[in-house]
Amino acid sequence: MKIDSVEFFYAAMPEVTLAADGSQDALLVRVTSGEYVGWGECEASPLVSIAAFVTPRSHGVCQPVAASVLGETLDGPEDIARIAALVERNSMDLLQAAHTFSGIEIALWDLLGHRFEQPVWRLLGYEKSTPKVPYASMLFGETPEQTMQHVSAAMIAGFRAVKVGWGGFGETTVQSDADHLMAAREALGTDGILLVDAGQIWGSDVEAAALRIPALAEARATWLEEPFLAHAYGEHAQLAARSQGVGIAGGEGAHTTHMATNLIDYGKVSYVQIDTGRIGGIGPAKAVADYAHAHGVTYVNHTFTTHLALSASLQPFAGLADHRICEYPAEPSALARDITSTGLALDENGEISAPDAPGLGLDVALENLGPYLRTVDISVDGTTLYASGTSAGRAVTVDA
Amino acid sequence: MKIDSVEFFYAAMPEVTLAADGSQDALLVRVTSGEYVGWGECEASPLVSIAAFVTPRSHGVCQPVAASVLGETLDGPEDIARIAALVERNSMDLLQAAHTFSGIEIALWDLLGHRFEQPVWRLLGYEKSTPKVPYASMLFGETPEQTMQHVSAAMIAGFRAVKVGWGGFGETTVQSDADHLMAAREALGTDGILLVDAGQIWGSDVEAAALRIPALAEARATWLEEPFLAHAYGEHAQLAARSQGVGIAGGEGAHTTHMATNLIDYGKVSYVQIDTGRIGGIGPAKAVADYAHAHGVTYVNHTFTTHLALSASLQPFAGLADHRICEYPAEPSALARDITSTGLALDENGEISAPDAPGLGLDVALENLGPYLRTVDISVDGTTLYASGTSAGRAVTVDA
Repeated sequence: MKIDSVEFFYAAMPEVTLAADGSQDALLVRVTSGEYVGWGECEASPLVSIAAFVTPRSHGVCQPVAASVLGETLDGPEDIARIAALVERNSMDLLQAAHTFSGIEIALWDLLGHRFEQPVWRLLGYEKSTPKVPYASMLFGETPEQTMQHVSAAMIAGFRAVKVGWGGFGETTVQSDADHLMAAREALGTDGILLVDAGQIWGSDVEAAALRIPALAEARATWLEEPFLAHAYGEHAQLAARSQGVGIAGGEGAHTTHMATNLIDYGKVSYVQIDTGRIGGIGPAKAVADYAHAHGVTYVNHTFTTHLALSASLQPFAGLADHRICEYPAEPSALARDITSTGLALDENGEISAPDAPGLGLDVALENLGPYLRTVDISVDGTTLYASGTSAGRAVTVDA
Repeated sequence: MKIDSVEFFYAAMPEVTLAADGSQDALLVRVTSGEYVGWGECEASPLVSIAAFVTPRSHGVCQPVAASVLGETLDGPEDIARIAALVERNSMDLLQAAHTFSGIEIALWDLLGHRFEQPVWRLLGYEKSTPKVPYASMLFGETPEQTMQHVSAAMIAGFRAVKVGWGGFGETTVQSDADHLMAAREALGTDGILLVDAGQIWGSDVEAAALRIPALAEARATWLEEPFLAHAYGEHAQLAARSQGVGIAGGEGAHTTHMATNLIDYGKVSYVQIDTGRIGGIGPAKAVADYAHAHGVTYVNHTFTTHLALSASLQPFAGLADHRICEYPAEPSALARDITSTGLALDENGEISAPDAPGLGLDVALENLGPYLRTVDISVDGTTLYASGTSAGRAVTVDA
C-alpha cells in the first residue's frame, strides 16, 4: 500500500508565554494509507516543521521531506526504515528535516499498528510492555518553600519520583541552588527519587556545574540533566568523572541516532533521554535504547507535551524491564490534555505502561481541537505550498 | 547603535534540478543599523530558514530567531558574540535556527566592517590576509573519460587543485571508482592536488569505505571527504586509522562549534571543512579555525555557492598562512555569478585571498537579481508573518 496523504494540525494555547513549558503548542501529523490512519507528533516550532515538508528543493540532497514520503510503499517496519533512510539522504542539508519527519515516522508506526492490530512495541520486537515509574516533571519554585510545596503536591498525587528544573537553577548562587535541592529532598522523604534538570544553563562551563555537585550529592539526586550544550560531549565526560555518584543525563537534543550514541560513548552519561518527536521517531529511538542497554546506560524518554507523544516515547523501551524511570508531563497545558480522548493514568502502584491496544493505543480527539487550531498559509511566487485543512496528497475536511 | 532591520532575498534558478549543485538557489540577508548596511548568506532551504526567523514561539527556549536579533545593540564584535549566545539560548529547541542565524551573523560582520572601514579578517584579529590555493570543486563525470576531461579543463583554467565528488562515486564497483580516480590523477599530472568527496555515501559502513582506500592511495588523493554521516565520529576515526596516508576530511554539516571540534577530537579528521552559512556564521568558524590550528588539523572552507559566501568563508582562516587549501565554486550557476558585481578571481599564481576592502569586500548586485527573486508569503491565522519585500523591522523597497 502507498502513503496517500500527510496532514498537519498546528494547535496552540491562546497565549504562548516565555515559560519553559513545552506543552504550549503541538504539531500533530495524520498519515493515511488506503483505509488506515496513523497519528504522530513533532516536537516544537510547528510552522518551521511544516515549511520543511513543503519547501521548494535547493538541490538533490536538500529536498523537502515530502519528496521522500508521499507515494512511498508502506507494508511493514522495513518500509519505515527505508523511508527514514530516504529522508536522511534526500534532505541531508535541510536541518529541520529530522524534526518534521519525527512526527511522520511516529504516525507510520501507529498506522501499521492499526493495520496489523498490534501495539507498536510488539512491532518493535518486544514481547510485553513493562511498567515504568513515572516522574513528575516540574519547574523549580521561586523560593525553596515553593519548590517544597510543588514536590509535596506531586507526592500526594501518587508520584514516587520528581524532576525539578529550570526556573533560575544554576544562574544565581550555589547556596540558593542548594536550598532548593534540600527543600525538594525534604518533601520527597527518604525514598522519593529526586532528578534535577539544569537545562543547558552552564553552556560549556564545567567548573560552574561542578560547584553544584556537593549539594546534588547531599540531596541524593539520581541525576543531573543537561548541564551543558547538547554537543558538548567532552564537558559532560569531565563532569561525570567528578560527580560524586550523581549520574549525568542528557540526549533530548539528539536529532540523529549517532548524536545519542556519541553522548554515551564520549559524554559518559549514565542516562540517555530521547525525544521521539525530535530524533526521527520511534525507529531511531529504539536503536538508541538497544545501544544504551548493551552499554550499561539507562534509557529514558523525554516528553513534556501530550499523551500521544508520551505513548510514542514509551514504545522504544517498553520491553526493557530494567529501564524503569520515565518522564511524565505532570502539569500539561489544557491543549496537551485535550488532544487525546484518554490518557495514560498512573495505576495503583503509581506506574504506567505503553498501552496494549493497536498502534499507540490512544485516540486523537480532533473534535476538541477547534479552539486551539492555527491556520497556516505558505506560498512562493503566489502559488500555495501549504494551507491548513489541505494535505500535500489530497484535500481533506477538518472535523473540528 | 541598534539593529534596525533584517531582510531576506530568496533567489533561485528558473529550474532547480536534482543535481548535487548547491548554487541553484541562495538566501541573501541584508541587515541595517543606522546608516550602515551589511550582507550575508544562509546555506540552503531558503523558505525554511525564513520561517525560523518569523515563526511564532513555542516556549521560552523555542523562540523565533528574530526575537534575539531585532533591536539588539551592535557596536562591536563582542555584540555579535552576545547575540549569537542569545540565539543559542532562546532558540535552543528550534533546529533550523543555526542555518538562519548564519546569514545574519555574516551580515553583522560585514556591517561592522563597513562602519569601522576594516576588512572582517582584521576585526577577527588577523594582521594580513594570506593567499590560498583554490581547488575547483566538481562532480565526477559519467565515465572516467569525462572525469578526465573535466579535470583537464580545470587545470587549463589555472587551478592547481581539483576536487571531484558525488556522481555515483562509492555506489557502483570498487573498480569503477578506481578508474575515475586514476583518470583524475592522469589529468592532474604529478603535481596537481587531488581531493575526493564521497558525500556521506557510505553512511556508517566503514568496510565499504575502506575498500576504496587502496585506489585513493594509489591516485595520491590528499583527502577523502565526508565518507560517513556528519555525526558518525567513531566511523571517521576507524577509517582514519587505516587510510594509508589519505587524510579524512569533513565538517560541512557542523551547525555548532562543538560539532566541528568533536569531529577533530573523536573523528580524527586531518581536515575540518566549515560552511559559515551553516555553523552560525564567521565567529564560530573562527573558533573552529583556532581549535584546528592548535590541534594540528588543517582548516578548510566549505563553499559551493556565491562569491559573497566565498568571501565570508575565507575570513575565519584568512590569517592562518599554513592553512592553504580553499574550496572555490568553479562552475557556479548563473544566479551565483550574478549575485555579486565582482568576484574573487584567481591571481597569476592561481591563488585567491580574502579581500582587503571593508567588510566582506564585495558588492551585492541587487539590480541583477530581479529574474531570480522568489516571493514568499507566510501567514498564521490570517496575519502575515513574512512577505517578500518587507522586513520584520520596517518596510523596504526592493531595488530589483
